[in-house]
Amino acid sequence: MTTNTTNLNLNPLPSYLQGQWITPTDTTDVTAIRDASATPDSPAVATVSRETLDLAGAVHYARDTGQRELAKLSIHERALIIKKLALYMKDHRDTLRELAHATGATKADNFIDIDGGITTMLVISSKARRELPNSNVIIDGATEQLSRDGSFIGTHIYTCIPGVAVQINAFNFPVWGMLEKFAPAFIAGVPSIVKPATPTAFVTAACVKVMIDSGLLPEGSLQLICGPARELQDHLDYRDHLAFTGSASTAATLRAHDSVQQRGLRFSAEADSLNAAIMGPDIRPEDPEYQLFIDTVLSEIVAKAGQKCTAIRRVLVAAPYREKVASDIADALAEKVTLGDPRDPATTVGPLVSEDQRQDVADAVHTLIDAGGQVICGGTERPENLEGAFFQPTVLSFDNPDVDAIHDTEAFGPVVSVLGYEDIHDAIRLAERGKGSLVTSVISHAPQVTQELAMGIAHCHGRLHFLDRGDAKTSTGHGSPLPHLVHGGPGRAGGGEELGGVRGIKHYMQRTALQGTPDHLTAITGQWHQGAQVQRVTREDVDQGRGVHPFRKDLATLKVGDQFASELRTVSLQDITDFANETGDTFYAHTDEEAAMANPFFPRRVAHGYLLVSWAAGLFVDPAPGPVLANYGLENLRFITPVTYDDSIRVELTAKRITPRVTEDYGEVCWDAVLYNQNDEICAMYDVLTLVEKKSSY
Amino acid sequence: MTTNTTNLNLNPLPSYLQGQWITPTDTTDVTAIRDASATPDSPAVATVSRETLDLAGAVHYARDTGQRELAKLSIHERALIIKKLALYMKDHRDTLRELAHATGATKADNFIDIDGGITTMLVISSKARRELPNSNVIIDGATEQLSRDGSFIGTHIYTCIPGVAVQINAFNFPVWGMLEKFAPAFIAGVPSIVKPATPTAFVTAACVKVMIDSGLLPEGSLQLICGPARELQDHLDYRDHLAFTGSASTAATLRAHDSVQQRGLRFSAEADSLNAAIMGPDIRPEDPEYQLFIDTVLSEIVAKAGQKCTAIRRVLVAAPYREKVASDIADALAEKVTLGDPRDPATTVGPLVSEDQRQDVADAVHTLIDAGGQVICGGTERPENLEGAFFQPTVLSFDNPDVDAIHDTEAFGPVVSVLGYEDIHDAIRLAERGKGSLVTSVISHAPQVTQELAMGIAHCHGRLHFLDRGDAKTSTGHGSPLPHLVHGGPGRAGGGEELGGVRGIKHYMQRTALQGTPDHLTAITGQWHQGAQVQRVTREDVDQGRGVHPFRKDLATLKVGDQFASELRTVSLQDITDFANETGDTFYAHTDEEAAMANPFFPRRVAHGYLLVSWAAGLFVDPAPGPVLANYGLENLRFITPVTYDDSIRVELTAKRITPRVTEDYGEVCWDAVLYNQNDEICAMYDVLTLVEKKSSY
Repeated sequence: MTTNTTNLNLNPLPSYLQGQWITPTDTTDVTAIRDASATPDSPAVATVSRETLDLAGAVHYARDTGQRELAKLSIHERALIIKKLALYMKDHRDTLRELAHATGATKADNFIDIDGGITTMLVISSKARRELPNSNVIIDGATEQLSRDGSFIGTHIYTCIPGVAVQINAFNFPVWGMLEKFAPAFIAGVPSIVKPATPTAFVTAACVKVMIDSGLLPEGSLQLICGPARELQDHLDYRDHLAFTGSASTAATLRAHDSVQQRGLRFSAEADSLNAAIMGPDIRPEDPEYQLFIDTVLSEIVAKAGQKCTAIRRVLVAAPYREKVASDIADALAEKVTLGDPRDPATTVGPLVSEDQRQDVADAVHTLIDAGGQVICGGTERPENLEGAFFQPTVLSFDNPDVDAIHDTEAFGPVVSVLGYEDIHDAIRLAERGKGSLVTSVISHAPQVTQELAMGIAHCHGRLHFLDRGDAKTSTGHGSPLPHLVHGGPGRAGGGEELGGVRGIKHYMQRTALQGTPDHLTAITGQWHQGAQVQRVTREDVDQGRGVHPFRKDLATLKVGDQFASELRTVSLQDITDFANETGDTFYAHTDEEAAMANPFFPRRVAHGYLLVSWAAGLFVDPAPGPVLANYGLENLRFITPVTYDDSIRVELTAKRITPRVTEDYGEVCWDAVLYNQNDEICAMYDVLTLVEKKSSY
Repeated sequence: MTTNTTNLNLNPLPSYLQGQWITPTDTTDVTAIRDASATPDSPAVATVSRETLDLAGAVHYARDTGQRELAKLSIHERALIIKKLALYMKDHRDTLRELAHATGATKADNFIDIDGGITTMLVISSKARRELPNSNVIIDGATEQLSRDGSFIGTHIYTCIPGVAVQINAFNFPVWGMLEKFAPAFIAGVPSIVKPATPTAFVTAACVKVMIDSGLLPEGSLQLICGPARELQDHLDYRDHLAFTGSASTAATLRAHDSVQQRGLRFSAEADSLNAAIMGPDIRPEDPEYQLFIDTVLSEIVAKAGQKCTAIRRVLVAAPYREKVASDIADALAEKVTLGDPRDPATTVGPLVSEDQRQDVADAVHTLIDAGGQVICGGTERPENLEGAFFQPTVLSFDNPDVDAIHDTEAFGPVVSVLGYEDIHDAIRLAERGKGSLVTSVISHAPQVTQELAMGIAHCHGRLHFLDRGDAKTSTGHGSPLPHLVHGGPGRAGGGEELGGVRGIKHYMQRTALQGTPDHLTAITGQWHQGAQVQRVTREDVDQGRGVHPFRKDLATLKVGDQFASELRTVSLQDITDFANETGDTFYAHTDEEAAMANPFFPRRVAHGYLLVSWAAGLFVDPAPGPVLANYGLENLRFITPVTYDDSIRVELTAKRITPRVTEDYGEVCWDAVLYNQNDEICAMYDVLTLVEKKSSY
């Protein structure tokens, strides 16, 4: 095992297929990738061969070996590998950073791509271990009572899809773009085949090298295609998932393929988006939010030289401020921005990734100028004294905010269009003209404006970012998709959804409704369902040595369905009065007979709900030291039948869900608690959350 | 307003567009619909004209008038309309039942379609009012802390899409098929345009007539197209939703349209599916599950004469039992099934919907026979003495379970193929050959078999139905999608998802991530977020008349952010000991200093969590009778910092979410409760659930 990525041959780039690095033998039919800061005739940094690869074999290997190896692990175990892998990559990121400069990325750009990708892995891993069960079945939503007697119930589960997750990534984030798709798929249990965009494929390949070299990945869980992958889709069907990030036109081609149209391939796209920033009509130039707005637009022009699908393209401000805003952005660019060698720490904006890309952006800017855009700064001319694919940061201002080109033409570089709106409704209308966007920022300090804009435009956005003096210092910014929140957007943005914490993992899983008896659903989900079989012990059993109290069982011996049934305990009026006096909870329902009887829900004075749950704990507890370490919480408590004085209560406590932690010597046990009265009516039901040792020290 | 549907002109069928019934003037270019039980030369029951309709106008009217009128109502208000409408339709179902007999539907079939549709509306309405907020913003998932200081947070919301929900329905369920799509869209706030399949369009039209005549529907919320709708998609884009139920080939045509491919139209399909029933390898003929299995297959052949997308097509049994099962199904059919006039109460199986459909089924059966299917009973010959599109219930048995036709050919009628499997893995493999199905039933009484089969096939199913002696009497059966559970399936089944309780409503909404300050998110969602502005009163303020305790405010005056802050109260060792003795909760962490200190989470003896929440209630309560009626529950309780003796606690209680009920004079108020110790560390946090009067009687 070596951690040296310099032994990755860049010329031609190898693929990693079926557990091996495959180097093309034909080195003549290749695409050359040049340093973005160098002249077009400079030597290639890397080359990508057009040699045919065994894609059918790769798909089969993923579905077979990859699925099998991943299935040996639980969700938590896979998430822990992702954490370890992220930490390993953190130790090896320097070689990636160095290499990525050749794509035009500055130090700050690399931080977004490389460190951002690693952080995304850590967050998704942590959320998976905190929010998902330590198994391979995720329960979705509540249990549904489908028959009155509880013998026929329903629930929903997620299980992992049986195929491969194919990722076709964009050039702009060779590392983050891969990792934000790979980590959720891996945790779900689905192997990935990664196909990076050619202009930055050498960075992705180097990253995959680090990942493979880590030795942490199960066989078949990750493959890499450097080269032609056009026929990959021919081998995919409803078992698989294809996630694409890139242009709308490529998205349309992939979507039109028979695999999607006829064979049910799951397809998710994240494509072009004409994202907006809206300065609320409440903001005046003297407000702190004004400068915040200028800074936000500025940083979206600078980061990755505007080559981000989330970058701001349309700047919407109240019409009277349009010219001022446009010139203030231009001034800020002039003052704060330095174009140059991305390896130079003083550089804030590097070149675009390639000459081709430079030409595309120039064409788009020409289109915008032809449509009425006045050039406030920048333009399509090459900046002086710089070789390479540099593009001047460009601000355009439009007298007529309604020309189509503004809302249809994505200049994928450091370019923004500044538009004036008449009022808040006009701002909403203009934002909507993007026909579906990834993100819009709203800078406003008025709750009413925030609310109106949000309600007006949420439907056409995957994310909305609100900024004012309150989060000026802590916001992670307009352009950064966070692993906690969904990334994607409707319409032009591709209609896909990624990330969003554990939501992103579920994208690689199938949701299935289950109907059956409580025993059926318990067997399938591993979670005890009310009405399923129990292994029951009573207080008397425990006292007489006929049974073991479940609190005396550690995680090695406790089973779902282990139940403790208490004796009855009678509640007297004095108990209620005492509890009221001691806790201070003298609410009239517990202390005033006449007022309690006037209440629509109570027959007369009733026991406090908190008395009931406190007494229930007294009824079910096994007090001596043992494997149960602590009660850390309670969920879904509902009081059903009121308990009045002279009623009696008893409790049934059943082990419902057992979640050993992969990194601790204990785990969570969730207990189903039901309180009954002397007539076996349910008084209260809830889940008790405890921490229990894996191996009891007692 | 009239409730008489006999005044609906069936010849030609009118459309209901832009608030008016439009009767075609050209009555020559029509498709004739004949009674399914009559001869092909019988007079038409109804005709559908091919006259061009103003579809662009209909789409515009829905997006404009329909959206505006629906937006005037909240989710609960719209759900209540659906309930009232369902009850109105229940009173008017007889005319629909009568009419539907002409489609071949028996009394039992009508119960599935018409009563089933009405029940679906009632369930969805009830779940929407219980599980969703009474507003137009649904919060999805937990709040995400995006900065350490809590000033930048995230959440997700659902808001309704801004366009129209177009439904293109199948012929087999002219009522249920419409209502199960219409009700969720309506509650979401999205107007519908319904395009029924021509063979049964007259039943759908009559149903729409009842719905419109009810006077309950807001303008623009429902339109009906009887006639050509091919160019409807030309007018749809990313704002809209198209839900299709029908054949895979039509699904593919709709999916290939530019509206989906290029313009981001949301598309959901529910198509052909070769559903299976699997008899577990644990079942012997003498087990009660054996007869249950035969009965299940039988009822799926009988219901709607097998014209259900969920009907069983493939019967999988252990190979040694194949012949017995096939002949037992045939015997049961002979004994229990009567083909005949669907109006005759003695009839159990009516005709197929049309001669065309009969021909399609006959063709499919020929294909199956050619592929090796032995005819155990039935076949393609017309039953004797019956005019109309009758098809004999048909059981085929295959020596080789692996021929493609079995797993590819859907005979959409009363036809099943019986296959033998070698072992459980072989059963899984055969079920998977359906390449994505709506539903499979598993009949087994062994938890291990249940679990293995479920894990083996969940990934390729939208629903799994488990049956044994435990739910034999209460199961709603293999073929009935329930409003509580998702309906749809991956791959061949179309890849769509409908229903599933409130999940089905969210399909007509856009999920959007929100980032901002607690004040931003509070303004947008209407739910108070930790850290947002509060209107705070202390006990001292209340005592001195400087402020009103929030418990004294009814729903008319209470606002989210109204906060009560208590004084500190010190916990003594005696308090802990007393609480232990009185409740009986003598867990060692509260009673045994040495053992408590040995616990990894506690410094020494600590107060019971239940003591803390009980005392907190004492600290925040305002005891006199007032608008707060009851504490009905508690959510998300977590104990954070342990409280030991001599610590003090205080509580902040803040109105978090206010949900007035549309049908009661009270509503739910959820309070955010945070307990702090004397060092302002958080000891516990939870949500307190109360019922509060809309208008206080005090």
